[in-house]
Amino acid sequence: MSEMARGIAVQDGSLGEEIVRRINELGAISEDAGKLTRIYLSKELRTAADLILGWMREAGMRAHLDAIGNVCGRYEGERPGLPCLMLGSHYDTVRDAGKWDGPLGVITAIACIAELNRRGTRLPFAIEVIGFADEEGVRFASTLLGSRAVAGTFDESVLNARDRDGVSMRDALVQFGLDPDHIGAAARTRRELLAYLELHIEQGPVLEAQNLSVGVVSAIAGATRLAARLTGMAGHAGTVPMALRRDALTGAAECIGAIEQFCRTDEGGLVGTVGYVHAKPGATNVIPGEVSFTIDMRAPTDMHRKRAVADVVRQIEAIARRRQLSLQLDVTHENRTAPCAPWLKDQIAQAIAAEGFAVFELASGAGHDGMAMIDIADVAMIFVRCRGGISHHPDEHVEPADADVGARVLLRVIENFRLREGS
Amino acid sequence: MSEMARGIAVQDGSLGEEIVRRINELGAISEDAGKLTRIYLSKELRTAADLILGWMREAGMRAHLDAIGNVCGRYEGERPGLPCLMLGSHYDTVRDAGKWDGPLGVITAIACIAELNRRGTRLPFAIEVIGFADEEGVRFASTLLGSRAVAGTFDESVLNARDRDGVSMRDALVQFGLDPDHIGAAARTRRELLAYLELHIEQGPVLEAQNLSVGVVSAIAGATRLAARLTGMAGHAGTVPMALRRDALTGAAECIGAIEQFCRTDEGGLVGTVGYVHAKPGATNVIPGEVSFTIDMRAPTDMHRKRAVADVVRQIEAIARRRQLSLQLDVTHENRTAPCAPWLKDQIAQAIAAEGFAVFELASGAGHDGMAMIDIADVAMIFVRCRGGISHHPDEHVEPADADVGARVLLRVIENFRLREGS
Repeated sequence: MSEMARGIAVQDGSLGEEIVRRINELGAISEDAGKLTRIYLSKELRTAADLILGWMREAGMRAHLDAIGNVCGRYEGERPGLPCLMLGSHYDTVRDAGKWDGPLGVITAIACIAELNRRGTRLPFAIEVIGFADEEGVRFASTLLGSRAVAGTFDESVLNARDRDGVSMRDALVQFGLDPDHIGAAARTRRELLAYLELHIEQGPVLEAQNLSVGVVSAIAGATRLAARLTGMAGHAGTVPMALRRDALTGAAECIGAIEQFCRTDEGGLVGTVGYVHAKPGATNVIPGEVSFTIDMRAPTDMHRKRAVADVVRQIEAIARRRQLSLQLDVTHENRTAPCAPWLKDQIAQAIAAEGFAVFELASGAGHDGMAMIDIADVAMIFVRCRGGISHHPDEHVEPADADVGARVLLRVIENFRLREGS
Repeated sequence: MSEMARGIAVQDGSLGEEIVRRINELGAISEDAGKLTRIYLSKELRTAADLILGWMREAGMRAHLDAIGNVCGRYEGERPGLPCLMLGSHYDTVRDAGKWDGPLGVITAIACIAELNRRGTRLPFAIEVIGFADEEGVRFASTLLGSRAVAGTFDESVLNARDRDGVSMRDALVQFGLDPDHIGAAARTRRELLAYLELHIEQGPVLEAQNLSVGVVSAIAGATRLAARLTGMAGHAGTVPMALRRDALTGAAECIGAIEQFCRTDEGGLVGTVGYVHAKPGATNVIPGEVSFTIDMRAPTDMHRKRAVADVVRQIEAIARRRQLSLQLDVTHENRTAPCAPWLKDQIAQAIAAEGFAVFELASGAGHDGMAMIDIADVAMIFVRCRGGISHHPDEHVEPADADVGARVLLRVIENFRLREGS
């Protein structure tokens, strides 16, 4: 098989073991003793950065912290200064997080470079590994800060955003040892990058249901988030006859049911979620006069999602009208879909097949740094199975054998990497 | 008209004006400057008690504070020591309350006695006016404390209940100047009471819709309250396909819809309300794994309510089963229906007709002290229209003309009161 031309057999499981050891070491760096929380520009993030920078250097890379806090390592190719294949993921976490979401991609990439370095392999391109400092957006309520800075699309107004303790991003950067006026220095250009490739846990149950260790991501689904508020009339639960009520919560319940029904009957991978609901005044014996809820809708293509959002909005408007509830409905967030590049997907598929696994494509419903990186590079992703689809939770888990398969596939992709035709 | 036999014409509006003046005076006694909050055994309740006791004495009554804090006035009949017609309502409030819920009944009763006293009228029975110290149950999460003590059904375990500042009811009684070991002294006996009669604002929109100032209450509806908790599986809003979800909130929404639908199609006055809902974890991009909500159900008869509750419980169980959600469903509160005595309703109806108004019967969906007093007396209630059905809110309002009609009707009932046949 031509894919194995530059490959040297790696002993089964050896990469996985090392990766799990490092996942646990990194997962122990947290602001809480009992649970994992490592947010952007925290003391713990700095400790984690230093650990990762050490691993990078140990793997034969030059490594530094960039202007926004990303950890960056570079493994030169056959000669210095070649454009790079960039491998990355993030090293911040949500609160009370799992250990795998983000770090698996960074640690696996470093493990692959270490393996190349052990063998003395140099490729006709450089390889860079990047650990983005803020993907989750926990601290300043704005996601993908690290990758946006690298893509040159960082929104400077976020510098004035404040965390829940009132600290601005600007001040937090200074405390971290960075200069808020030089974030522009983190930006990279399209010329420097051959592609952006990310390995990440699936965060969903699809690979498990397919009984597969890894999968090829077809696209990072865009998302539209809406905030809805229905206003009716509060009243005493005992004294207002059903026919005279304008109950905002029964109205919201009808909307929630309609969203679920609409997405369930869609056959194109549409998902819709109401994750937050709040009824006021919220007493057992009072008819709710006002209910707020959120809607999160995602689909594998932008057109599909936009049509679905428009349909759902029409349904909610009709429900509100029929129930004489006033409706406020705002789009609070919109991310376009980031399709994975076919030429990169092909190379991942070939590597998976060469490792002896079935090739399976699935969309990523979760957002990833590739959504920002697509502005300066073609992107692709490898998903690794996680137990029960559980993520953003301490129970998040990847089997060592699956981590090993992920690493072997990634290493094979690197070794056999071919430039995009015409580039 | 025979009903007017003992009546002397009262000038239209004169009682209403005096009542509104006192409603405002009492409504100014609050723990907050800007809004009305007067909870059980507070300093403000004591101030209010002294004001009401003064009004009672001014109206020709002997007056005292009883062992649980109720204000009690007695206007003797043709000779001392006769059994009494008891008129009452409560003088505590919810937080951020209206001025009318409770006080209207106490103040109107005193106004009627004052009118009898002005005329020197003595009747062949005594009249007592009682202002219950705790009907709302705000402070110790247990309602009808005042009327239960009078009915001899006070639950002593409530003495150990603590308010939100950690003060027990026992200690609060001592601070108020009462002896917690002598609450039994507040109890009255069936022999002493000819009937219990309460005038109260409707707290609902029915009289307004009927364009009537007053109505005859058919029954104080019992209520069953349930706490439901549905547990499914939390998950990422983007990564879990609709078919693999066990979303606790869409399950709860279906339950809320089913309760509304069931009550709407009932023709016997059933009402069902979900006033509180909480989805965990409550993030925009997370499928809710657990949802708690309350259910409040009321109907004019116990049998009707119990059947309806059983039906609703069956529906919720079926929804949970079908959606693979685990369900915890507990009855947290149950009040039996207190039917108003037909012989008393007749006398109220006659008084309303004699005042020139249409007689209209309606159930009380809200709870009232009659629910406790029914253990020692036949009970009846007169409802007075309130604007927009709004209650438990600063906007609670009664037109002075309606307050006047209520007082004229109550006065006429008192003057023409006939003992129950056979008693």
